[in-house]
Amino acid sequence: MRQSSLFSSTLREAPSDAEAVNHQLMLRAGFIRQLAAGIYTYMPLGRRVLRKLEQIVREEMDRAGAQEMLMPALQPAELWKQSGRYTVYGPELIRLKDRHDREFALGPTHEEVITTLVKNEFSSYRRLPVAVYQIQTKFRDEPRPRFGLLRGREFLMKDAYSFDATWEGLDTSYRRMYDAYVRIMERCGLNYRAVEADAGAIGGEGGTHEFMALADIGEDTIAACTCCGYAANLEKAQSRAESHTYTDAERNRMEKIHTPHVRTIEQLKQYLHAEPRDMIKTLIYMADGKPLAVLVRGDHEVNETKVKNEVGALELELADAQTTTAATGAPVGFAGPVGLQIPVLVDAAVAQMPCAIAGANEADYHWKHVVPGRDFPVERAGDFRNVNEGDRCPQCEDGSLQLFKGIEVGHVFKLGTKYSEALGARYLDANGKEQPIIMGCYGIGVSRMLSAIIEQNHDERGMIWSPAIAPYHVHIIAVSIKDEVQMRLAEELYARLRERGIEVLLDDRDERAGVKFNDSELIGIPIRVVVGKHAANGNVEYAERKDNEKQLLSKEEAFSRIMETLEPILARSR
Amino acid sequence: MRQSSLFSSTLREAPSDAEAVNHQLMLRAGFIRQLAAGIYTYMPLGRRVLRKLEQIVREEMDRAGAQEMLMPALQPAELWKQSGRYTVYGPELIRLKDRHDREFALGPTHEEVITTLVKNEFSSYRRLPVAVYQIQTKFRDEPRPRFGLLRGREFLMKDAYSFDATWEGLDTSYRRMYDAYVRIMERCGLNYRAVEADAGAIGGEGGTHEFMALADIGEDTIAACTCCGYAANLEKAQSRAESHTYTDAERNRMEKIHTPHVRTIEQLKQYLHAEPRDMIKTLIYMADGKPLAVLVRGDHEVNETKVKNEVGALELELADAQTTTAATGAPVGFAGPVGLQIPVLVDAAVAQMPCAIAGANEADYHWKHVVPGRDFPVERAGDFRNVNEGDRCPQCEDGSLQLFKGIEVGHVFKLGTKYSEALGARYLDANGKEQPIIMGCYGIGVSRMLSAIIEQNHDERGMIWSPAIAPYHVHIIAVSIKDEVQMRLAEELYARLRERGIEVLLDDRDERAGVKFNDSELIGIPIRVVVGKHAANGNVEYAERKDNEKQLLSKEEAFSRIMETLEPILARSR
Repeated sequence: MRQSSLFSSTLREAPSDAEAVNHQLMLRAGFIRQLAAGIYTYMPLGRRVLRKLEQIVREEMDRAGAQEMLMPALQPAELWKQSGRYTVYGPELIRLKDRHDREFALGPTHEEVITTLVKNEFSSYRRLPVAVYQIQTKFRDEPRPRFGLLRGREFLMKDAYSFDATWEGLDTSYRRMYDAYVRIMERCGLNYRAVEADAGAIGGEGGTHEFMALADIGEDTIAACTCCGYAANLEKAQSRAESHTYTDAERNRMEKIHTPHVRTIEQLKQYLHAEPRDMIKTLIYMADGKPLAVLVRGDHEVNETKVKNEVGALELELADAQTTTAATGAPVGFAGPVGLQIPVLVDAAVAQMPCAIAGANEADYHWKHVVPGRDFPVERAGDFRNVNEGDRCPQCEDGSLQLFKGIEVGHVFKLGTKYSEALGARYLDANGKEQPIIMGCYGIGVSRMLSAIIEQNHDERGMIWSPAIAPYHVHIIAVSIKDEVQMRLAEELYARLRERGIEVLLDDRDERAGVKFNDSELIGIPIRVVVGKHAANGNVEYAERKDNEKQLLSKEEAFSRIMETLEPILARSR
Repeated sequence: MRQSSLFSSTLREAPSDAEAVNHQLMLRAGFIRQLAAGIYTYMPLGRRVLRKLEQIVREEMDRAGAQEMLMPALQPAELWKQSGRYTVYGPELIRLKDRHDREFALGPTHEEVITTLVKNEFSSYRRLPVAVYQIQTKFRDEPRPRFGLLRGREFLMKDAYSFDATWEGLDTSYRRMYDAYVRIMERCGLNYRAVEADAGAIGGEGGTHEFMALADIGEDTIAACTCCGYAANLEKAQSRAESHTYTDAERNRMEKIHTPHVRTIEQLKQYLHAEPRDMIKTLIYMADGKPLAVLVRGDHEVNETKVKNEVGALELELADAQTTTAATGAPVGFAGPVGLQIPVLVDAAVAQMPCAIAGANEADYHWKHVVPGRDFPVERAGDFRNVNEGDRCPQCEDGSLQLFKGIEVGHVFKLGTKYSEALGARYLDANGKEQPIIMGCYGIGVSRMLSAIIEQNHDERGMIWSPAIAPYHVHIIAVSIKDEVQMRLAEELYARLRERGIEVLLDDRDERAGVKFNDSELIGIPIRVVVGKHAANGNVEYAERKDNEKQLLSKEEAFSRIMETLEPILARSR
């Protein structure tokens, strides 16, 4: 490709509303352009990378034995009503009516469609197991689209579905997909962790793992063990109970203390010179419209996912001041477990406390020496908190948990029979008996992966692409297009490399050398060949974007070096 | 691929609402499944063919110098309002609101998006010419979705756009695309005609051609010359004026004749023993709500596209009985040009008539000896009729026109400055003066092409694929999977062919031979190898789907024959 003909421009500055580095770089380098909030056009450079990611995903899906298909974006609302997700999905599901006033949804995912299809397509156990996938545009009306392609409203996804007759079969299908995901992450050069995750709104029984690209910008938090392989999304992560020594004095009878205007754990710490881990934090929630108290230790945070799962709520939010006062009899800041008349969930770490400080459900008062089980009932105890950095690993003896930020780029999920039961997808087993098909679903955010890769591979000057997914393999820069010797050499290299199947971008623009170099580093093509003043002696400057070490080579040396460096890529496409 | 694991099933019967052969065959062979009216899932076999068509289109677009990109399906309604198409497009444009109540359209085409993009992307003549394309899902809420993929509501399209500084440049860009389309049609093996077409609602100046796949099921009519290369859509087709001899007697004064209950040309012919070509047919239309009369000869049909273009109407429909009576003073069937008080368009063939029979605008009466220009004014004369089969070619001396039915699979279009003016996409010329960018747009219905190819390539037993686009190249049928010798030979061939890059479907199902043969002919893979009772002697039956001539070959002969037959395909992918 001649850069003088390239459709996109580079920008000196990214628009000020682009917060994330990947978003800024993709805009500046002309990879994407925004059409509306969370809705982007892929310009030719971006499209090229996206196609390479698609191809890697496709190859690994094929290798895993999944069959490619293509399902529609327009889905009858009826199917979503049958599965029960028409309501659950909320405003993220884009809805519309056709000219006959029939309701449709724009697919954010395809469980309903594929399950209905399978239901009509076959009925014998002999057709199982089978797995299918598609690479297709999805729609989700995000409340706050941001970070460019990371959280968009229209995005490219690979979704796969497996169908099995047995739960063991599902385990095998799941493992095959998991392994394919590992290969995909590696081929794309992502620094990732596969973490245990919460099942969430998509529903279903059994295991689920998220493939997280580590990045500070990530919206998920991952807890990973320093010793063993344990890694989980914070929503799901557990830790081993700590032993905690308490003094005898703490087991006295409850005592009410005057704590004027002391409403937060931090204020209480200062006022009483006490440690947060000796306090009980009482939070009042509304779970599907009903009040609920959750107790965690003062140094812990409530994990709302765990709470939601415990009570089976679709919606959970902190109660407003009025509801809190109605439930506790006191203004916000003085809630406590003693005498509380609403359901109470007690985190395991609270249940273990010999005694604690807690709100008194009375303005400006707290209790000391509150003993769980003695002074308030501990009926529903469990794990309702986020793990903290440094907590002990739940799986090994020696490790402790570290926290990372991650971008969810993939998700494998044992759906079980949730959709097959709801939509009636059954098979006849060898005895002629009807059984629900056992399903798994497996997603990869292909466009999101693009963002994650850039987030992990850039420096202050621009993107840094690996040859496997770069928009072009080699960037030839003709320093002065008015210099005939330079242009002849640049054109010769351009032609020879292309003949060998190398993808080359030739900067033949009538621009200053500085502009060309800056654009080259911004776009980040892995190999750069500068054809400048040394062209007179048949020499060029060779450098790789990843380390930028410049070497003066003869054109033949440069040609051989390029072929050598790219050999693994070329071998794969042969 | 082992057919026992194939996701889709074949069906003995197509659903009764599938009228078109391609639709029936695609359903029966398991290429597609319907999700809702005009909305289909591509099953693995269908997806494979679709991907090959995509790839052919992509390669030829790249070769024509267009750059691939990807634009969103969700388009802000604002853009459509700016271009004026939000209203014009009518209910075919699918509309929706996001969670913030902002209006969006689901893109049926992308002129608005690309023009706005270009407007912001560059401003110098030095960036022109440039052309881009995408292969992307489009949405159109068809009033009557039918014929499977032919007229769907969600479909795969390739749309390309060219941007030029000069009109000569547009001609070059247009020609380059036209040539690419010719190559695409040929590579897909379509029997097609490139025909002159009407500009239609998409608007713009300059030329436009449709690429029509000839097929009886086609919704378009094409007129093509028997001698020269002239071919045009009926909407646009013209013919050379015929010389027509009339007797002197016909130039008498007008005479009113009693014609009780004689309302149609056919009735008039029988009642008066006159020829339709000596009669004037007067049709009353409503053009954007205003009445309009159109006069054509009795043996001609009105061409509504030509009428619409003449009066610049967005909507044109035949007037109802009440409006007709109000406009003519007579019931339907007796309208005529004499004394008519509404605007009248006179077809050129009518203007040439020395005299004619016409309605008298009075119940049960006609006029004889009506002379155009003498008895009614001929102010707006022009070409307002459809050509007839056998009309003289407008371009050559000797040819006459033949009519065919065609499926529009491609469309190239000189848009000119319609969108760049409306949306403000300008460039600075070499003198620093602002000029509107001159555009072309170029569409191919990729999924529709699939239908057209099947419509042209099938027999009573199923589809007939050419190797370039077949879902698989070779179909190996193991007649009895319980026969070890047969299975060993089938597996050996399967493995050897796949190793050489051949795509093979191996029928390893536990089914009767008859079922396997029927399915094989239905799916229509170009080469079939039956491994049956001759396997004991190392022989197989080789046949090509196109002629079904069976030959007994040794396995080595069969292998060589396959490699030979597929050589052109394999060479292309190397």
